[in-house]
Amino acid sequence: MNQIIETIMNHRSIRKFADKPLNNVQIKTIVESAQRASTSSNVMAYSIIGVSDLAIKEKLYAVSGHAHAKNNGHLLIFCADLHRINQLEGIEHTGTFQNNIESTEQFIVGTIDAALAAQNAAIAAESLGLGICYLGSLRNDIQAFNDILQLPAHVVPLFGMAIGYPKEIPDIKPRLPLAAIYHENQYIPFEKQKHFIQEYDLTMKDYYETRNSNNKQETWTEQIRQKYEKPTRMDVGPFVNAKDLNKH
Amino acid sequence: MNQIIETIMNHRSIRKFADKPLNNVQIKTIVESAQRASTSSNVMAYSIIGVSDLAIKEKLYAVSGHAHAKNNGHLLIFCADLHRINQLEGIEHTGTFQNNIESTEQFIVGTIDAALAAQNAAIAAESLGLGICYLGSLRNDIQAFNDILQLPAHVVPLFGMAIGYPKEIPDIKPRLPLAAIYHENQYIPFEKQKHFIQEYDLTMKDYYETRNSNNKQETWTEQIRQKYEKPTRMDVGPFVNAKDLNKH
Repeated sequence: MNQIIETIMNHRSIRKFADKPLNNVQIKTIVESAQRASTSSNVMAYSIIGVSDLAIKEKLYAVSGHAHAKNNGHLLIFCADLHRINQLEGIEHTGTFQNNIESTEQFIVGTIDAALAAQNAAIAAESLGLGICYLGSLRNDIQAFNDILQLPAHVVPLFGMAIGYPKEIPDIKPRLPLAAIYHENQYIPFEKQKHFIQEYDLTMKDYYETRNSNNKQETWTEQIRQKYEKPTRMDVGPFVNAKDLNKH
Repeated sequence: MNQIIETIMNHRSIRKFADKPLNNVQIKTIVESAQRASTSSNVMAYSIIGVSDLAIKEKLYAVSGHAHAKNNGHLLIFCADLHRINQLEGIEHTGTFQNNIESTEQFIVGTIDAALAAQNAAIAAESLGLGICYLGSLRNDIQAFNDILQLPAHVVPLFGMAIGYPKEIPDIKPRLPLAAIYHENQYIPFEKQKHFIQEYDLTMKDYYETRNSNNKQETWTEQIRQKYEKPTRMDVGPFVNAKDLNKH
């Protein structure tokens, strides 16, 4: 196993950081790494907002509810950004150009571009001995998330990434068996994935009972069932449309 | 610069591969690396389809139009997958659960999960001395893309990744200056990004004129303008809705 695979396999989300900010060289290295990820047709339909201002972190923490949204060495916010290209010189803000910008296709492009960049940032940070945690919880109130960062039309905030010096080393969370997510040549009907999921339910029950913090008794299936039985972030769809994205 | 940052900074898309398939150990390492990426609430709302069957590669090539969709060492397809969790034991296929599954929020979750996994796969492959190229072009006919892989409802094929032994080493494509995509604390109004884009237009003009293949005379702004002046993949939005995702 080479050093890169080792770093990747060693990933766990870090939620407790030392009270020590990243320096500018670290931030620059992480953002430049993000920029080197592939991007659809070199459109670069994303933006990254680096938050160091404590007052802004406090506001984002109020949205997320997770302490590591404010207590971290640096906070990056990843956005799907179709605004930049919509403002380029000589663009007509009507007709086909606008229809393209506001399509689901381009929202997918922006979302994927942002996520590829983010994962490069995550691995770069981890290679520097830092820890990271994604913050999808900032979508708990996506309108507030947006307003805090003053995002224009055609820009949607997707998630944050808290980065910092780890103050904990949690256990690595088991994933579904490879055979449940990896299909050969064609999609495996669910019936054939089923016993891998039963196997994983037992793995996770054991993991939650024995891990080094926050023990509980639960299978993966039970977790998913509970999670999706409550309406979750149903305002995200209308919000994205109101930003004039994902409209058709 | 450590070895990981070096690998990340050294990325270029590879579109010509030696006629040599990946072995099973390589594929397993790449897919396991993909699985270690973060995933929203451990939902793992994605699937990967590994295509080695030449007849299926031929069909995907017909959709993509790019030769590296069939001529590669292995082809991975990344899908947003809300089908798996929708089939779990004890799930009611009505009401709140279904509303959640079919929301824009969950389509974002699946798309981001798939992309994070993909970028881990990309870096893992590159660390093994292989090259990769993302294939968004498979969305040129997303219905055909879907049908070739026999994807059920709640699964959307997003993109492919051709992997293999590089038969070319193209130049590294310049990106927008960091200052154009990285904002500090709040979104930078476009007026303040403008001169970085003008700088990049000159950089790209020079790059296209002098790179080692496929020379042309074009700025980035001109490329974007031309790309978005044609209706592009306007069927993706209706297709995703017909898969019962991204509906509200």
